[in-house]
Amino acid sequence: MSQPLINKFVVVGIGLIGGSLATGLTQRGACAEVIGIARKPETCDEAVARGVVARAYTSLRDVASELGKGDVIFISVPTLSVTAVLQEIKDFISPDVTITDGASVKGSVQRAAEQVFGVIPPQLVLGHPIAGSEKSGVTAANPNLYENHRVILTPFSNTSAQDLALVSAMWQAVGAEVLTMSVEEHDEVLGATSHLPHVIAYSLVDTLAQDIHNPNIFRYAAGGFRDFTRIASSDPVMWHDIMRANKVAILQSMDLFIDNLSRLRSSIEHEDSDYLLKVFSRAKEARDEFTVMLAQRQVSTKKE
Amino acid sequence: MSQPLINKFVVVGIGLIGGSLATGLTQRGACAEVIGIARKPETCDEAVARGVVARAYTSLRDVASELGKGDVIFISVPTLSVTAVLQEIKDFISPDVTITDGASVKGSVQRAAEQVFGVIPPQLVLGHPIAGSEKSGVTAANPNLYENHRVILTPFSNTSAQDLALVSAMWQAVGAEVLTMSVEEHDEVLGATSHLPHVIAYSLVDTLAQDIHNPNIFRYAAGGFRDFTRIASSDPVMWHDIMRANKVAILQSMDLFIDNLSRLRSSIEHEDSDYLLKVFSRAKEARDEFTVMLAQRQVSTKKE
Repeated sequence: MSQPLINKFVVVGIGLIGGSLATGLTQRGACAEVIGIARKPETCDEAVARGVVARAYTSLRDVASELGKGDVIFISVPTLSVTAVLQEIKDFISPDVTITDGASVKGSVQRAAEQVFGVIPPQLVLGHPIAGSEKSGVTAANPNLYENHRVILTPFSNTSAQDLALVSAMWQAVGAEVLTMSVEEHDEVLGATSHLPHVIAYSLVDTLAQDIHNPNIFRYAAGGFRDFTRIASSDPVMWHDIMRANKVAILQSMDLFIDNLSRLRSSIEHEDSDYLLKVFSRAKEARDEFTVMLAQRQVSTKKE
Repeated sequence: MSQPLINKFVVVGIGLIGGSLATGLTQRGACAEVIGIARKPETCDEAVARGVVARAYTSLRDVASELGKGDVIFISVPTLSVTAVLQEIKDFISPDVTITDGASVKGSVQRAAEQVFGVIPPQLVLGHPIAGSEKSGVTAANPNLYENHRVILTPFSNTSAQDLALVSAMWQAVGAEVLTMSVEEHDEVLGATSHLPHVIAYSLVDTLAQDIHNPNIFRYAAGGFRDFTRIASSDPVMWHDIMRANKVAILQSMDLFIDNLSRLRSSIEHEDSDYLLKVFSRAKEARDEFTVMLAQRQVSTKKE
């Protein structure tokens, strides 16, 4: 047997994202051991009992002395809790350990790292797997979550090439395709294609749930509504953090959307058939192209 | 063999909705014969070639002389084309034939019927199957489309009890659950739970597709985005007609939604965590309850 890609894989925050990567790496023999870190002792116990991690502790400090080159720390706590984890890393962890994360917003992690370290250390590779689910918590961990999904890494000019290569190989090991881009581009693109849809879905469901004229309105909704609102079942604390962390890009996207929707509202009011047909046709065309592209991407990933 | 529920079933407009009902009734032995009416001769030929209908014509006039008691005409043309079909019915069809429809908006059909007939005839039962797909056309016809779905009928005070019973039994024969409510209630509820989500999905996809700063933005979208925007692949002409037909209710729903979304925008701008968490949690709770209800409904329908 060849040596595994990673020696010790330490997952800080054992929820859907971290638990899925931990079990994915274990099942594929890509790490020698998985260690979990969670704030609550119950989460530690449950993660061990479910076999998601081999052992677990409530602080990174408890494992600091045994970590070195070839080990990876993966930070997968809610976005606004990253600073506290980075502080522990600064205080206790060797510069030989590769550090990466899975937060949905990269600008806020960059700012947190600058605040804690002054200059972001070369060992820290920021990343974001474009995969998820409306489910959350360690019970939702799924070793195949990242198969055929994309992971965006946002390296800085001083990021260590070796650490970047190890993090890329780690994601490829669980079936993901790795891309790189700047922190700014990442946050703009995700603000538009992920954060904006979540705000819209939450707002729509809340609008209907608050409509006192139609207390039983959901009784008459069907499968299309279920698909459309699936993301409104996502974890509220996680999404609150994302709204705070990516505020500027999300507000920009919301303004573009509210402007487009208001023009559509006006065209319905004034029965402007040409405008309505133009927008609906253009949207259908773009969305149909997107699904073709997504299907091709999945086929080509499976072939490799 | 007992006699089938319906003698001749005439489907006017052989697309997803009409074709699915036709094949569903045929497969379950619930009608003696299916006759199709379509404006284009090619659609007639294709519907016959695919076995969706036994024979097809380009006008209701061609079959008028052979229709009587026990026969059903189902109108499933785009919403704004209903008037022309009702005019043909007035001119050529016997009052003994049961007439019903599947349009997504009932107020506009009511107004069209009043315009054509003066007083809406007792033989005309308005209805709407809460089922559909982003696919359209005769090639999308699916005999099981209505299984476990709801159909809303909106009878008037002078609607014939016999015709209403036959239309109810027809929908139950293809596995649907039948409810009745007023035209006004139907259009308000559907405006909120179906028409509003479609406007939003079209507008979101169009907003992103028009964003010149991010020409490749869809490259980074994933499965959640695919689900969220599925309904933006729906037929533009059909949805244009619905926007025109249910204008008042849709504008009301849009105003409530835009107001809620604008408050959410302001709470993101001012980092009002309490408000954000309250809305996200309330929405998640309502959406989780909805999916439980939907699952229970499907289990209970299957048991019957």
